[in-house]
Amino acid sequence: MDMLWNGWGDPARGRPLPDTVTGLLRDLLGVRPRGTEPVGLAEIPVPPSALTPAAHRELVSAVGGTHVRTDAETRIRHTRGKSTPDLLRMRDGEVDDLPAAVVLPASHDEVLAVLRACAEHALALVPFGGGTSVVGGLAPGRRVPFVALDLRRMDRLLALDPVSRTATLQPGLRGPRAEALLAERGFTLGHFPQSYEWATIGGFAATRSSGQASAGYGRFDEMVLGLTLATPEGTLDTGRAPRSAAGPDLRQLILGSEGAFGVITSVTVRIRPVPQVRRYEGWHFPSFGEGTAALRRLAQDGPRPTVLRLSDETETMIGLAQPDAIGSPAGPRSAGCTVVAGFEGTEEDTAYRAERAAAVLRESGATSLGEEPGRRWAHGRYSAPYLRDSLLDAGAFAETLETAAFWSRLPGLYAAVREALTATLTDAGTPPLVMCHISHVYENGASLYFTVVSAQGDDPLAHWARAKYAAGDAILAAGGTISHHHGVGTDHRDWYAEEAGALGVAALRAVKRRLDPAGLLNPAVLLPPD
Amino acid sequence: MDMLWNGWGDPARGRPLPDTVTGLLRDLLGVRPRGTEPVGLAEIPVPPSALTPAAHRELVSAVGGTHVRTDAETRIRHTRGKSTPDLLRMRDGEVDDLPAAVVLPASHDEVLAVLRACAEHALALVPFGGGTSVVGGLAPGRRVPFVALDLRRMDRLLALDPVSRTATLQPGLRGPRAEALLAERGFTLGHFPQSYEWATIGGFAATRSSGQASAGYGRFDEMVLGLTLATPEGTLDTGRAPRSAAGPDLRQLILGSEGAFGVITSVTVRIRPVPQVRRYEGWHFPSFGEGTAALRRLAQDGPRPTVLRLSDETETMIGLAQPDAIGSPAGPRSAGCTVVAGFEGTEEDTAYRAERAAAVLRESGATSLGEEPGRRWAHGRYSAPYLRDSLLDAGAFAETLETAAFWSRLPGLYAAVREALTATLTDAGTPPLVMCHISHVYENGASLYFTVVSAQGDDPLAHWARAKYAAGDAILAAGGTISHHHGVGTDHRDWYAEEAGALGVAALRAVKRRLDPAGLLNPAVLLPPD
Repeated sequence: MDMLWNGWGDPARGRPLPDTVTGLLRDLLGVRPRGTEPVGLAEIPVPPSALTPAAHRELVSAVGGTHVRTDAETRIRHTRGKSTPDLLRMRDGEVDDLPAAVVLPASHDEVLAVLRACAEHALALVPFGGGTSVVGGLAPGRRVPFVALDLRRMDRLLALDPVSRTATLQPGLRGPRAEALLAERGFTLGHFPQSYEWATIGGFAATRSSGQASAGYGRFDEMVLGLTLATPEGTLDTGRAPRSAAGPDLRQLILGSEGAFGVITSVTVRIRPVPQVRRYEGWHFPSFGEGTAALRRLAQDGPRPTVLRLSDETETMIGLAQPDAIGSPAGPRSAGCTVVAGFEGTEEDTAYRAERAAAVLRESGATSLGEEPGRRWAHGRYSAPYLRDSLLDAGAFAETLETAAFWSRLPGLYAAVREALTATLTDAGTPPLVMCHISHVYENGASLYFTVVSAQGDDPLAHWARAKYAAGDAILAAGGTISHHHGVGTDHRDWYAEEAGALGVAALRAVKRRLDPAGLLNPAVLLPPD
Repeated sequence: MDMLWNGWGDPARGRPLPDTVTGLLRDLLGVRPRGTEPVGLAEIPVPPSALTPAAHRELVSAVGGTHVRTDAETRIRHTRGKSTPDLLRMRDGEVDDLPAAVVLPASHDEVLAVLRACAEHALALVPFGGGTSVVGGLAPGRRVPFVALDLRRMDRLLALDPVSRTATLQPGLRGPRAEALLAERGFTLGHFPQSYEWATIGGFAATRSSGQASAGYGRFDEMVLGLTLATPEGTLDTGRAPRSAAGPDLRQLILGSEGAFGVITSVTVRIRPVPQVRRYEGWHFPSFGEGTAALRRLAQDGPRPTVLRLSDETETMIGLAQPDAIGSPAGPRSAGCTVVAGFEGTEEDTAYRAERAAAVLRESGATSLGEEPGRRWAHGRYSAPYLRDSLLDAGAFAETLETAAFWSRLPGLYAAVREALTATLTDAGTPPLVMCHISHVYENGASLYFTVVSAQGDDPLAHWARAKYAAGDAILAAGGTISHHHGVGTDHRDWYAEEAGALGVAALRAVKRRLDPAGLLNPAVLLPPD
């Protein structure tokens, strides 16, 4: 099934906001219904493909005739990702970033052949996994015509080693399919980002994705043991051992490279036995500060839950941790903050960890809310992007951004980003609701994930650009990283350049030039123009 | 205190082998006393420094007059590292790799100034921490005169953040001094490689060191949260957050770069509270295979000990896990294999983990040896390099090498390396004793650490070169990495090139060229000549 072309996910799962929520948005934020309906797919004027007949022939010889698509719908469906600005532009029928063709390779060698064809015909190439980037990761720049390389046909489990607990997966495998293939053998990857139902293994690696169970299973980049990269200059194969002292870790150069260094054609990951038990619990803290201190204690001294998530006061009040419950009588009401702590593993180990974690949480000032909030969270864990579509339909603006920092910088970072978002959007005449949660913890720090909801106002793209710009500056000034798990794309390029420093950028450019001398690979993302 | 110039460590701690061991070596391996005594330090003919007056002036202006040393003894002490071939050549008075000068900077800015001076005067530069490399990491190549950059004056704790549990350390800090500075604040780094007493923080980072407590504290590269690198092209600063999705991880490009990309001038590491309890226990397994299976089970399903080490049958018989006890009546005698499992942490957590690990070990076929073997291991944990000096004195040859692989490849790798070492040295007329242990475990694989002892024979350097070559080939053929924690240096360069692949090497060369365009930084290590 294809995703909704101008929104999220399965079109059948979208649903309008309950009247209570619409009322709340109107009263609280001045949200008014949009005056216009989104443009229909068939109404969009699509220019003919810029692909020359010679280029088309060579692409066909690389992957076969039915796997080179130039029809309008396929091209539209491979235009951009799923950030709110992306969606607003799609809803307006603005498709300036259309690929010249969509090419679907079935193997590493076919990817190499496509790269050769692109080099020969001066076509840029943008790898396309689930198409779920929210940071402009699929924007090609407009200097040259480009091919979207859709990896969906590369969706096999290539190898599974139950002794070493490793699996080698093709990049086009979506999260649920990868889990299903592993589950047949009794294993799980344990990677469940919000985009899980649609995003792919290759995309997880290329963007350093992090899932909701990262406290227990680690980030995706921590799961990766080996990678194969197809580049215009040939193949790069990494990962002979879990860990090595043989030089810099080339895996860590490919992870996060966002298609700018090559196309990831296989990923070898750590796998674990399917847990016997999954148990999610809710806890209530009087304040975000107290909740943060408790999360830090669990992250540093244990026991480590598998899932650990703390919503701030605003997010708790709105109930965004349980999107399905918003506006319903079951939704949370009390002041303070909600924690969801989840435990997965064997019966014995889960019981031991849950009990000791409960003691730590209680000592830190929490009161138990039982399993109901945990169940609601688990049920609604992939629903937030659907909710965003409904909010956009209702005339609201909704977007997210995220960062991470060392623990001691977290309170300052939290305050600075909230302030930057609130001030700029209020100045623009669309005062926002800014919510935040911590959903990834480390011994030395944690992530902050912000959700912003406001009225769309007269020019939501411009308003958001200003707010996002202010937030990015605030993140860097307060000592955070410009992205904890969304990636760089085009949206974070300038801040990333500041974060990596001039010499860091120069080193990465040197790598890019060596692997992609013609600069055809995803040319607009990651690094600012030279 | 300086290390013994042609051997290991504190000269006062060396001691001759007990007669029982000398007899064993003679009867088992045909070891005979050397006919000649090692050359004395004062007897070595040292050519005058190739440093020009202009270069000398500029180095003096960079670091001050007393910190540019060209005397014979200082230069000899900065010639090579501590591999057995290094020591044998030093004992023969062969010092072809002498630096032109030894320069001791006190700050990042002084390092930058030294780099400028070197670039201007066509001097290569070899960073020198503890000088403990056993893979030719301090060999300069002989194309140009070079400066050894001794970092011992950069030995401060720059910052400690008790909330985030991070510390920023200068690179010249030796292990014990770093631990002492952290202990004053109640923290530990937990990094205890065999070279701990002499090796430095910068060296740990540059070579991806791994310590004996890696099961609990992780490898050094896993502890590193930030690095500052001084290069001929300026400064590279990394690490704004524990984890980030902002592009490739530049930290992982610097870690393992062995001084070829720049000089590491500060390292920010994760620290942990000093453990309340340390408890080491011995266990006996009937065979290495059963012991390996048990280690895998603990690494994959837990509970994870802090220290976990399994000696194979030969190492157990020889008692190399307790160097201090070799030849003594307290030494281990039984057939089979010994495991040392150590637990550090809070009283409660240590008790829980030790008890559950004991159950796993028993179920896997182990019998308890009590705490005595653990105590002996802990007592002798830094003694093996002293033992090597005694072996060399007695006319024996002794050297180590190490690798790592995924669990499923470990038995084949173990057999292949043993066979390669045994066959080549037997062919050379010096049949060896080959011992092995596993001392670093991961969910997906483990390290293998081999110790080889034989008679020196007529030409130990040539014999070992052949054996090491055969072992390197066997490692790669059997799917291992050429180094788990010793690094690449000059000794592993060719195999590393094979492991990284042509395109991997090309990418790293591109980075090197960008950061060190004149190729003055540690020019012989890591990457083969272009």
